[in-house]
Amino acid sequence: MFFEGSEKKLVLQLHPSAPSLRAYPRGFWQQALAMADAAILSDLSNAYCDAYVLSESSMFVWQHKLLLITCGNTRLIDTVAFIIEKIGAGLISELNYQRKSEFSPHLQATRFEDDVELLKALVPGTAYRIGHLDSHHHYLYSAAGVTKQAQSACLLMYHIEGEAAQYLRSAEQESSHIRRLLNLDRLLPQFEFDDHLFQPCGYSINGLFEDKFLTIHITPQEQSSYVSVETNVNFLQYPFNIFAELLKVLNPSSWDIIGLNMPIDNTGFLSNRRVASCDLQLNQLNDFNYYHYIQAESETLIAEVL
Amino acid sequence: MFFEGSEKKLVLQLHPSAPSLRAYPRGFWQQALAMADAAILSDLSNAYCDAYVLSESSMFVWQHKLLLITCGNTRLIDTVAFIIEKIGAGLISELNYQRKSEFSPHLQATRFEDDVELLKALVPGTAYRIGHLDSHHHYLYSAAGVTKQAQSACLLMYHIEGEAAQYLRSAEQESSHIRRLLNLDRLLPQFEFDDHLFQPCGYSINGLFEDKFLTIHITPQEQSSYVSVETNVNFLQYPFNIFAELLKVLNPSSWDIIGLNMPIDNTGFLSNRRVASCDLQLNQLNDFNYYHYIQAESETLIAEVL
Repeated sequence: MFFEGSEKKLVLQLHPSAPSLRAYPRGFWQQALAMADAAILSDLSNAYCDAYVLSESSMFVWQHKLLLITCGNTRLIDTVAFIIEKIGAGLISELNYQRKSEFSPHLQATRFEDDVELLKALVPGTAYRIGHLDSHHHYLYSAAGVTKQAQSACLLMYHIEGEAAQYLRSAEQESSHIRRLLNLDRLLPQFEFDDHLFQPCGYSINGLFEDKFLTIHITPQEQSSYVSVETNVNFLQYPFNIFAELLKVLNPSSWDIIGLNMPIDNTGFLSNRRVASCDLQLNQLNDFNYYHYIQAESETLIAEVL
Repeated sequence: MFFEGSEKKLVLQLHPSAPSLRAYPRGFWQQALAMADAAILSDLSNAYCDAYVLSESSMFVWQHKLLLITCGNTRLIDTVAFIIEKIGAGLISELNYQRKSEFSPHLQATRFEDDVELLKALVPGTAYRIGHLDSHHHYLYSAAGVTKQAQSACLLMYHIEGEAAQYLRSAEQESSHIRRLLNLDRLLPQFEFDDHLFQPCGYSINGLFEDKFLTIHITPQEQSSYVSVETNVNFLQYPFNIFAELLKVLNPSSWDIIGLNMPIDNTGFLSNRRVASCDLQLNQLNDFNYYHYIQAESETLIAEVL
């Protein structure tokens, strides 16, 4: 059983004078998401943000910022084109559009190069590939403007193993048990959470606390497991490192850390080797950092009979 | 500038009673190779083997064994189908068909799954994937019969850097200088060699000594460099490790070692970490071993502007 966990991501920031994104009615977002074949499953709001769990990943809408993540075979690029046309490209101060290299790229509706062609016609920017073509790599289209982009940190985990991974793949699961495994209520008691357990497996959770967010998406499927964690919380200011905590629970064979204008601390990470890193200056204000890790122990692979 | 160095490989062994493969005329092989869009560039023969440098990689024809390697966008599967039909499937005692995961799989004429469908109709066998889908992986279709398959060892190098790599990418090259860089004449003085330098870059060399062979294919292109070395020489019986020697010269950021019924020694390898390994028993007689290595030092990636 295969599901493409690898995600596409849009981050938009609008000029301070732009109308609030939160003023757009739910119907607008539903229409936008339908372009990608995604839908809203549940939502959570506070004074700063509307957070949506989607049929494929999540959407966060702040007054002047939008974060939209989709996985599977969604056509996020179509939603992006719809949103930019409706909002007006002139109101956009910053745009980043990212794609993680997929497990099964041949199942995707478009390649990154196709998406770039469309994006270039909407908002001028630069396209990058970070990482070698024959291994994990990330595509980024960035229209970095004159403002500092909002901080974010992202942990992507590949090939999770162990007790939690087994539970996440099991036939009988409960979201309350997954929440306990992830330990979020204890680690982040101030956060309010909204989660969804998919059938036959898969788990998404959004969390909000004031203007801070955390979102986790788990595709536990054997042979192609993928977990993403994204947040704008600076955990250097906390007594624990949330990425280290989640690495301990989910025990991936390899993982990426991506920071945008965010210092990343690898204290407490599973015993590991840093395989590669990249420091990409998008412009004078914005800094994109990428690190790829593997576990220190060599992995014993089992050949898969096809 | 991109060229797909990643290779497809066929190894056929015939029953001892079969007519010699060397009796097939050159025109037969030319016709077979044309099915894949490959052609013979030069050849070298001894009492045991006819070795051909091809427009894409190499072919070795022994009395009862065939090794055929092609890279680029060749359709090796079409050549395989042609050869099996002409020779007769009943004369085949062992068949292995392999594909390395490509840098740009979307440019390939077929996917491994398509090739397997065709192969299954010709010679019953088992299809495997060794390695995760989101990183380096190998596909193998194996019809392992009742004989022990001929020993072979294979070194695949990715992302070569340093002096030799720079020379191999330079505008002015000479095959004599590349031979000196590879140090083959000094290391293997008993071997006779036949090489070809491609335009604008790329280098292939075949070597024969009695029933032993060595073949090296270098795709030096920046961003997608790939080098393959294959041999049936057991270097445990030599005072040096040929893979260690070539790793020193070509300095890849990562590499695979694959042994078929061949013990592999990693003495003298570049300072490295073994990332993963797989021991796949094809049947009671035949053992396929895979090892993936990276350099011990973390790699500093430069984002590629697309």
